[in-house]
Amino acid sequence: MKPKALLFDVFGTVVNWRLGITRDLTTHFQNHPCNHAPEVIADAWRAQYQSSMEPIRSGRRGYVDLDTLHTENLESVAEMFHLELGTPEEKKWLIKAWHRLPCWPDSVSGIRALQRRFVCASQSNAHIALAVNLARHNQLTWDVILGSEVVRTYKPAPEAYTRASEALGLRPEECMMVAAHNYDLKAAQEVGFQTAFIRRPTEHGPDQRIDLEANGYWDMCAESLTDFATQLSCH
Amino acid sequence: MKPKALLFDVFGTVVNWRLGITRDLTTHFQNHPCNHAPEVIADAWRAQYQSSMEPIRSGRRGYVDLDTLHTENLESVAEMFHLELGTPEEKKWLIKAWHRLPCWPDSVSGIRALQRRFVCASQSNAHIALAVNLARHNQLTWDVILGSEVVRTYKPAPEAYTRASEALGLRPEECMMVAAHNYDLKAAQEVGFQTAFIRRPTEHGPDQRIDLEANGYWDMCAESLTDFATQLSCH
Repeated sequence: MKPKALLFDVFGTVVNWRLGITRDLTTHFQNHPCNHAPEVIADAWRAQYQSSMEPIRSGRRGYVDLDTLHTENLESVAEMFHLELGTPEEKKWLIKAWHRLPCWPDSVSGIRALQRRFVCASQSNAHIALAVNLARHNQLTWDVILGSEVVRTYKPAPEAYTRASEALGLRPEECMMVAAHNYDLKAAQEVGFQTAFIRRPTEHGPDQRIDLEANGYWDMCAESLTDFATQLSCH
Repeated sequence: MKPKALLFDVFGTVVNWRLGITRDLTTHFQNHPCNHAPEVIADAWRAQYQSSMEPIRSGRRGYVDLDTLHTENLESVAEMFHLELGTPEEKKWLIKAWHRLPCWPDSVSGIRALQRRFVCASQSNAHIALAVNLARHNQLTWDVILGSEVVRTYKPAPEAYTRASEALGLRPEECMMVAAHNYDLKAAQEVGFQTAFIRRPTEHGPDQRIDLEANGYWDMCAESLTDFATQLSCH
């Protein structure tokens, strides 16, 4: 059965967060030199991402958005690496780097082609404002942004998927999760979603060790979003 | 100050609900003849819209979406006008008429032009699924759909506006409500939004009596969404 809607993971699947964060850290380092490469700081910042959402997934902490988590995580990284965050404006600009991430080269044209036949939804842990800014920054148009405010939790909590399909008025099996991360697809499959793995072997840089290959029985696998569109006969 | 985001009312402002509902009722009447003109039934159905949301705005009833309210209201209209609703499929098709409403002729090109300079958001009482279907039916692309699930109430409750601006990461004064209804603009202005009145003098048919003119100090007034785009120097 063909899905009715494609729900896209964003960080890593649609946008190249490491390139964007490294680029803006490089700019920041011009005024605040740092003994570490910007890639090291970018990876350390992102490394705190999953664990910082855990108290919210488990209900121990009320919902806060990714700007809040990115701020707390940056402060912790700054302490670890003796990184100066500068003025409040400079710090805010760095946190907003997550709103300015560039797409992978195939993302905009791939999603545009897929949209001719499928509802294409942003289904990220990003809040709505971040997802809107990312889309406008890249001239990407979603049919709908299902921000974390809509599902009121973070992936891979099962409700992040079931509430997304409910918001679209669809049954889980009418939805296909599209992601570069096996854990995300596993959680989506467990609630009945179809699944598509997009290979992003340099998301974490040249030495990436995880998610190099599909490691589950996913319905589809593709090398890029344009390859995915071609496999679904969207041109 | 120029707004950063334009938040659009949809029923009446962007889409011509009376034309769409009348058209689908006409089709329904082919199998289930009715002694009343389809316009009469359409107006009676819509007339129950505001009052049916009141228990939810006031908190006496928990949130239910517009499909539910449209169903209840249609059943009540059917009883009043001795209208046969047919099989469950036929009834469901009629309720889904609200997902297939046509745009006014200027809506798609107007919003497309405005989108070059402003975040354009659907800010309707519709739930997300209905708004997505309306947009795809008309090949309309929103930057973001702020469905009633996002704000968890119905306009003109103040939270319907304040939570929408929060979801966009904007202050109320950075948002402009765009609507063909004075009551909607009044409520938006009261929480600090900028306001634009779009004249839709035939929304309720040839004998329309309300909202023929702006009756408040709105920041802008326009004859159509293309006129509005021109006034905002969007081409």
